[in-house]
Amino acid sequence: MAEFKSKIKTIEWTGNCSRMVDQTILPERFEYVDIKTGQEMFDAIKTMIVRGAPAIGVAGAHGVVLYAQELQAKNLSREEFVSELLKKADYMATSRPTAVNLMWAVKKQKEIIESSKSDISGIVEELKQNGIKLEKEDIEINKKIGDYGAQVVPKGATILTHCNAGALATVGYGTALGVVRSAFANDPTVKVFADETRPRQQGARITTLELTMDGIPTTLITDGMCSYFMKKGMIDMVVVGADRIAANGDAANKIGTYTVAIAAKYHNVPFYVAAPLSTIDTSIKSGDEIVIEERSREEVTHINGKIICAPEVNIINPGFDVTPHELIAGIITEKGILRPDYNKSIAEAFA
Amino acid sequence: MAEFKSKIKTIEWTGNCSRMVDQTILPERFEYVDIKTGQEMFDAIKTMIVRGAPAIGVAGAHGVVLYAQELQAKNLSREEFVSELLKKADYMATSRPTAVNLMWAVKKQKEIIESSKSDISGIVEELKQNGIKLEKEDIEINKKIGDYGAQVVPKGATILTHCNAGALATVGYGTALGVVRSAFANDPTVKVFADETRPRQQGARITTLELTMDGIPTTLITDGMCSYFMKKGMIDMVVVGADRIAANGDAANKIGTYTVAIAAKYHNVPFYVAAPLSTIDTSIKSGDEIVIEERSREEVTHINGKIICAPEVNIINPGFDVTPHELIAGIITEKGILRPDYNKSIAEAFA
Repeated sequence: MAEFKSKIKTIEWTGNCSRMVDQTILPERFEYVDIKTGQEMFDAIKTMIVRGAPAIGVAGAHGVVLYAQELQAKNLSREEFVSELLKKADYMATSRPTAVNLMWAVKKQKEIIESSKSDISGIVEELKQNGIKLEKEDIEINKKIGDYGAQVVPKGATILTHCNAGALATVGYGTALGVVRSAFANDPTVKVFADETRPRQQGARITTLELTMDGIPTTLITDGMCSYFMKKGMIDMVVVGADRIAANGDAANKIGTYTVAIAAKYHNVPFYVAAPLSTIDTSIKSGDEIVIEERSREEVTHINGKIICAPEVNIINPGFDVTPHELIAGIITEKGILRPDYNKSIAEAFA
Repeated sequence: MAEFKSKIKTIEWTGNCSRMVDQTILPERFEYVDIKTGQEMFDAIKTMIVRGAPAIGVAGAHGVVLYAQELQAKNLSREEFVSELLKKADYMATSRPTAVNLMWAVKKQKEIIESSKSDISGIVEELKQNGIKLEKEDIEINKKIGDYGAQVVPKGATILTHCNAGALATVGYGTALGVVRSAFANDPTVKVFADETRPRQQGARITTLELTMDGIPTTLITDGMCSYFMKKGMIDMVVVGADRIAANGDAANKIGTYTVAIAAKYHNVPFYVAAPLSTIDTSIKSGDEIVIEERSREEVTHINGKIICAPEVNIINPGFDVTPHELIAGIITEKGILRPDYNKSIAEAFA
């Protein structure tokens, strides 16, 4: 397989700080920001300078390193250093309460702090190395997902995607867009259609940006257009990410994904979910158990700071929907493509 | 049947001018503008101060009256008056070249100019009366559509609609929203879900405005959300308008309508099209013959004057899509609800 070199490194430890793409100013400007203190990292996560579960996890790990560097400069005893740093780590984990990857990455750092036999500078170095390791692992998992997924992308295919499961949601390669990158590396005639993904427009604001930066031909469409292009035979497959997958294969993802899946089924276009195994929650039997977050009214009523509707209109703004397993042709993971029956294939992947 | 009194009169002849809702400043301001000259009417149609095929038709008829009033003030001979006015009428018809209703209404006025036995002031009066007659006819047809449609709205139903086939697209009652108004008059527990309808957001900008003005409970959703709410059992039926309907029942309407129709089929939610018989073009056998207008790139890439995507992204912006007849439960017209087989029921409606 040819290897794809992405221009985008969403988050990276560099020197003594964490460098990340500032996602609050996309798509107008693409700029890196150096996060130099623990509090800056807390704020960066909270204000969504960094977003996407895998990227946030790495950001949290880097944040603990930044606090460790600050405490190291304070001439504390080793005992004081460890005690203070564990408190700071717990604080870091509260920057985005629902982000599972954040909790997990901070917990990994806390285990190092608690179990290390080194002196203070040794602990700081171990935390830094673990942060870098998490970066690398995320990219490796994404590349495996990409390479498995590329095997089911037909020659010259046009791939429709919804929202952003890309380099900018991860450390630098992407899950759904990792499949796109790996496929494009093998076959430069591969193209992408990106759904705008209202209300927050991650498809327009983020997906089109990262794909055009990487030279992958991308067409932006509005969310209602997918069926039109499917009927015309202009879309060969759909690949999306997932926020949480149940033991039976039901997949929660950004609102609007389910509508695309129904349209794909109607037109016999295969619909794939690309996600690391860490996204699969085998403790829930089906998508019915997934609680859907209600988001703010303003995401629907306002765009670019201006109202687009009658001010008194009612709004319901579910952030996610659940695509039932029967609409999913395969779940592309770092251990291969899981196929129906998902209860069986998912259990086997975790065996 | 209870009668619904709408607050909205989109276009109305009043005194010596044509008063219309300025649709270019919706939803931020709801203001009437008095159009006092033929050239002002030409510009109002061209710049979409007035929009929607039936409303544009009436606007064109009013525009001819305005020109007639101007020429009347010029002390021309009757012959000169007729000759000049026919030229002005032809010019008026070019303000929106693809609007069938505009051509039709201007043609009606030209027939009066050419066949009238009256003097100049008599011709002006006949044209004025015909303009007022066209207004009334449009509302009468809409009310018939509304009343037929209301018969298939279940008690307490939530009706999903896409785009704006409402009072603001017609003289003052609406086709799809005419069904909503008639149903609501009988049953004030009826509610509406309005799709935003990207790219131009007519659902958000116009439908939510006219329905909340008329006191009808309305929820705005983004275009990708319809399936989520259908699965939850929160949508009982879909009613949309149409731009053109083929002899087999295939219906062209605003882009995104077809996606809603597929979602409705998947969830067993009945999907209706509401349109006057004048929308049915029996000269075309199926939707395959309907040419889909490609609209501008900026409608997709910009909202409220700001770019929402990578500037170099590719755009395809079809203005309409075609919903195939097999997804349509019924076509609600002023002669009743046409049912499948549409080739048969449409032919009978025109018999």
